[in-house]
Amino acid sequence: MSDSKLSYAIIGSGALGGYYGARLQHGGADVHFLLHSDYGHVAKHGWTVDSTQHGDITLPKAQAYRAAADMPRCDIVVVGLKSTSNAQLPELLPHVVKDGGCVLTLQNGLGPEDNAAAVVGAENVLGGLCFLCSNKVGPGHIEQTRFDRIKFGEHSRRGITGRMRQIAADFERGAVDIDLAEDLPAARWEKLVWNVPYNGLAAVLARDCSVLMDNDHTTALAHDLMLEVVASAKAVVGHDIPLAFVDKMLNNTKHMGPYRPSMMIDREMGRPMEVEAIYGEPVRRAEAAGVAVPKMRMLYEQLKLLDES
Amino acid sequence: MSDSKLSYAIIGSGALGGYYGARLQHGGADVHFLLHSDYGHVAKHGWTVDSTQHGDITLPKAQAYRAAADMPRCDIVVVGLKSTSNAQLPELLPHVVKDGGCVLTLQNGLGPEDNAAAVVGAENVLGGLCFLCSNKVGPGHIEQTRFDRIKFGEHSRRGITGRMRQIAADFERGAVDIDLAEDLPAARWEKLVWNVPYNGLAAVLARDCSVLMDNDHTTALAHDLMLEVVASAKAVVGHDIPLAFVDKMLNNTKHMGPYRPSMMIDREMGRPMEVEAIYGEPVRRAEAAGVAVPKMRMLYEQLKLLDES
Repeated sequence: MSDSKLSYAIIGSGALGGYYGARLQHGGADVHFLLHSDYGHVAKHGWTVDSTQHGDITLPKAQAYRAAADMPRCDIVVVGLKSTSNAQLPELLPHVVKDGGCVLTLQNGLGPEDNAAAVVGAENVLGGLCFLCSNKVGPGHIEQTRFDRIKFGEHSRRGITGRMRQIAADFERGAVDIDLAEDLPAARWEKLVWNVPYNGLAAVLARDCSVLMDNDHTTALAHDLMLEVVASAKAVVGHDIPLAFVDKMLNNTKHMGPYRPSMMIDREMGRPMEVEAIYGEPVRRAEAAGVAVPKMRMLYEQLKLLDES
Repeated sequence: MSDSKLSYAIIGSGALGGYYGARLQHGGADVHFLLHSDYGHVAKHGWTVDSTQHGDITLPKAQAYRAAADMPRCDIVVVGLKSTSNAQLPELLPHVVKDGGCVLTLQNGLGPEDNAAAVVGAENVLGGLCFLCSNKVGPGHIEQTRFDRIKFGEHSRRGITGRMRQIAADFERGAVDIDLAEDLPAARWEKLVWNVPYNGLAAVLARDCSVLMDNDHTTALAHDLMLEVVASAKAVVGHDIPLAFVDKMLNNTKHMGPYRPSMMIDREMGRPMEVEAIYGEPVRRAEAAGVAVPKMRMLYEQLKLLDES
């Protein structure tokens, strides 16, 4: 088990970016964190991660920065911002991506890789889907409660590349579950099968997943929304999602307990919701491919109203 | 101007039934009120109606009843209950409808006439749509702020009948705006063009009509919902609603100010919403006629969740 030769910049060091950055550093990688409110604390005291699953971490020292312009250029720039902040990427990324380096976006929905590609070129972008439950519980202090898997892959080609294996090894040395995606667009659409019904319905109706799945009407609606995602995945990226996967998602969610999706929490906290990444882009791509997605579109329009008023 | 020869029973004497009953009595009709919480007050002090539009009314005496079994049988039984209480009709109506008398339901959506018809026979039922803004402001005290028009007609046949003219004359003597409907089902579907988008969206999103119409996304969604109602009206009752009517409804609502539909207020107050009459019945009838109404159905399912959890 040797140390990484890659350097990492973490853009957006919150409950997600901070968690994975701390894991990478714990595994031996050279990690640089861009921070806002927690800058002072992390610069002085580093990171604390509580995790019953993968072991607690204390990192008394961390390389912390207040501005992208102060950071060294790195091999891998991990974007852990919410997708609603991606308008900042053209300003941030040019400072931190080394020549020959690349960007790994760890964001929800569709579009984040395109946002990064517009700045650094599509061939220099990888994208990851995170299955992570973590919270900021204090400055520089993160609690990870369940899962931390990342499924990631290349944005501009299919298959598994050398840099994917290198990055995977770095995360795995930090005890993060990694899954390599040979077909990132297919993986993104598959994740939408869950995200499209539950994030939006929970946010609009202000009810957690167990309430939605205890009711026959919203269970039927979640099912219909999943079928629209399946039809879209087929038309937009040629990916066949088996109906057994839809049944599995419904069934898993039915037994998930009172889970509150991120968009529901964002609405409660009055924070911007990731409406464009999870709904706007998927709806536009589905409709451009000739697929009727009336219920996804309706949920999009309801969420836009809530986000804008 | 002669007094009415018809007797009236008002079943459900709230802001709507109480208002119209007081108007009928003010016009000279023999009116009998079924009351719950306001019984004591109305039995002792009668009704007060404030109305800048049609003139205030004070009726110091009113024929008030606590139970249908105590009421005399009347020629015209006006049902002013919310449609969510229609399960009570089989118990109430047999006590109060005179032989040869009839029931006039003043309720929202589709189905109220069928509920009454199941008890007294379809040929003895008339139905009315109310365009009324009124509130209970105290016991036996109603404020009418805008509109009070009733459009009513026969349930089991088309055209204008003698009893329709008689009832209209009684209301008009009380200064109520009356419009005779030659085709009640067509009139009901036309009213749904407004009710389907605005009642449900305002209730689900907790935003009044002016907020919904200030936003391009929910304006587009309201438009799509109206088009589903138009297609349903054509398929279910053979009624052509011109697209100019849709444009007029959108435009009127855009300039209506911060209007809060009844279903939005019901949700806020934790009262049952009229989900089946305004959504369940229309959706089932449209789908049975082969019309795709995905957005009406989605709104129905969202409202059912809110009503049941």
